[in-house]
Amino acid sequence: MKFEVLVLGSSSATPIYGRHPTSQLVNVNEQLYMVDCGEGTQVQLIKFGIKSNRIKHIFISHLHGDHYLGLIGLISSMHLIGRKDELHVYGPPPLKEIIEMHFLHSQTVLRYPLHLHATQDKEVELIFENENLQVTSFPLDHRIACTGFRFDEKKRLPAIDKERATAIGIPNDYLSLIKRGHDYAAPDGTVHRWQELTISSPDPRSYAYCSDTMRTEGYLPYIQHVDLLYHEATFLHEMLSRAMETYHTTALQAGQIAAEVRAKKLLIGHYSARYKDLKPLLAECRSVFTETQLASEGSWYTV
Amino acid sequence: MKFEVLVLGSSSATPIYGRHPTSQLVNVNEQLYMVDCGEGTQVQLIKFGIKSNRIKHIFISHLHGDHYLGLIGLISSMHLIGRKDELHVYGPPPLKEIIEMHFLHSQTVLRYPLHLHATQDKEVELIFENENLQVTSFPLDHRIACTGFRFDEKKRLPAIDKERATAIGIPNDYLSLIKRGHDYAAPDGTVHRWQELTISSPDPRSYAYCSDTMRTEGYLPYIQHVDLLYHEATFLHEMLSRAMETYHTTALQAGQIAAEVRAKKLLIGHYSARYKDLKPLLAECRSVFTETQLASEGSWYTV
Repeated sequence: MKFEVLVLGSSSATPIYGRHPTSQLVNVNEQLYMVDCGEGTQVQLIKFGIKSNRIKHIFISHLHGDHYLGLIGLISSMHLIGRKDELHVYGPPPLKEIIEMHFLHSQTVLRYPLHLHATQDKEVELIFENENLQVTSFPLDHRIACTGFRFDEKKRLPAIDKERATAIGIPNDYLSLIKRGHDYAAPDGTVHRWQELTISSPDPRSYAYCSDTMRTEGYLPYIQHVDLLYHEATFLHEMLSRAMETYHTTALQAGQIAAEVRAKKLLIGHYSARYKDLKPLLAECRSVFTETQLASEGSWYTV
Repeated sequence: MKFEVLVLGSSSATPIYGRHPTSQLVNVNEQLYMVDCGEGTQVQLIKFGIKSNRIKHIFISHLHGDHYLGLIGLISSMHLIGRKDELHVYGPPPLKEIIEMHFLHSQTVLRYPLHLHATQDKEVELIFENENLQVTSFPLDHRIACTGFRFDEKKRLPAIDKERATAIGIPNDYLSLIKRGHDYAAPDGTVHRWQELTISSPDPRSYAYCSDTMRTEGYLPYIQHVDLLYHEATFLHEMLSRAMETYHTTALQAGQIAAEVRAKKLLIGHYSARYKDLKPLLAECRSVFTETQLASEGSWYTV
């Protein structure tokens, strides 16, 4: 099952050096989920060949402009190109008022159903679930209300060991029962345990998205053992006091967090406009967590 | 005196084919005025090498997203890069509420003075004036409240005919008086008329901006005899009924309007996403008004 992240924007507050404000797409089994939607995200989608109507759910972390000012334009363009499918947007409570105010004054009545879901930043919460995925929001620490998001694959049913099933002569009708944990009683009375007839599915994978936040202990329980952690790394550690003042994280801290929560891989982004060259951020992070990559716009990262 | 228009965005509602939503810069004597500010305008400014802090006045025609959704990001970026100078924004009354709501929820307190001026769409109004320019807004017809803007150079004082002034031996102290219409009485009693001592300044130029609007008689008096008319030309005339439904203009109508108001030159833009190739729009417009150009992003047009 596909589980990948496309970086659409990697910059912090101001677009610069060809970098754009934050947005990502998460592809889980060819379903596209958007996380944050900075100004210009719809242009980035076009640039990277993504049809916006494939997106059914958009998660907004907080209401700083560089994380949501592309949302109204994207919602409007979906309307103009004839979207019919419903769209779900999750974000801080005032987002509903902001979006509705725009559509009131532009006198726009969307031709598709838009559902706005308020998140809260006090505790972890399951905000979306389907047959193969669940998404939780969890509090970050960023001056204004801000949440991270964690995408967890659900454990899939085991696969049938086809060679063995054929050898025993199990009728096809039984296979889905066996996958679900039923044993098979053959006509000769032999009972075959379902565990012997199946190959267990891979461990479910998980992706956590943390932007923007100061490094605190508070959110670490929610991002334990993820396969891929995206964490903002706005500054080099020499700018720690600036990072703390602005409720951001340094590259060193991002690496330390990844190590501490035992993430398998780390992706950093949300680069300050002061860094044209990102290699020092990467090097600093890798000094404590080798499996680090720089978020680069247009690149897909496997979870 | 410089009087030029830079096109930053030429697309109608959806960004496509590398075209962006509407925005322009008007350079009058090295003062930059912005007209409309669609999503991504700040990135266009960077692309074309314009420092945003040179902009002191921004005029917003109406509250469809493709004409203002880049404004909050631009205002925020000006704040983040340390702007101190005041910024004046002119637009429909709800714009103030929209901007203030964003800054309330993002908990941003701008470090520079932002003045929001409400326009009205009922009659022509002088909304800005300085020593060499006046800007008026005037009503357009676009379903929601929408105004055009007209930039008029003021008549400049005449220049001194230096050769003649030197021959007569006029002291420098008198020259500014002569420019302002005072005659010069020489020590020998001869009176030299100021008209004979000066070279009259060129006729003042004017630029009118009309986007978005249906073609009506209503606004034609406000755009008479402009040197350069920007007029939207969203559709080809074969789409006239669609143009009227959506309160837009066809290329043929734009050309007819330019001819009717005796504009010297016409610039068309706000192209529908249905036109990848713009040459048919240009050809249609030129069939009735030869001095037409296509608005092309990154190009400056002399008024």
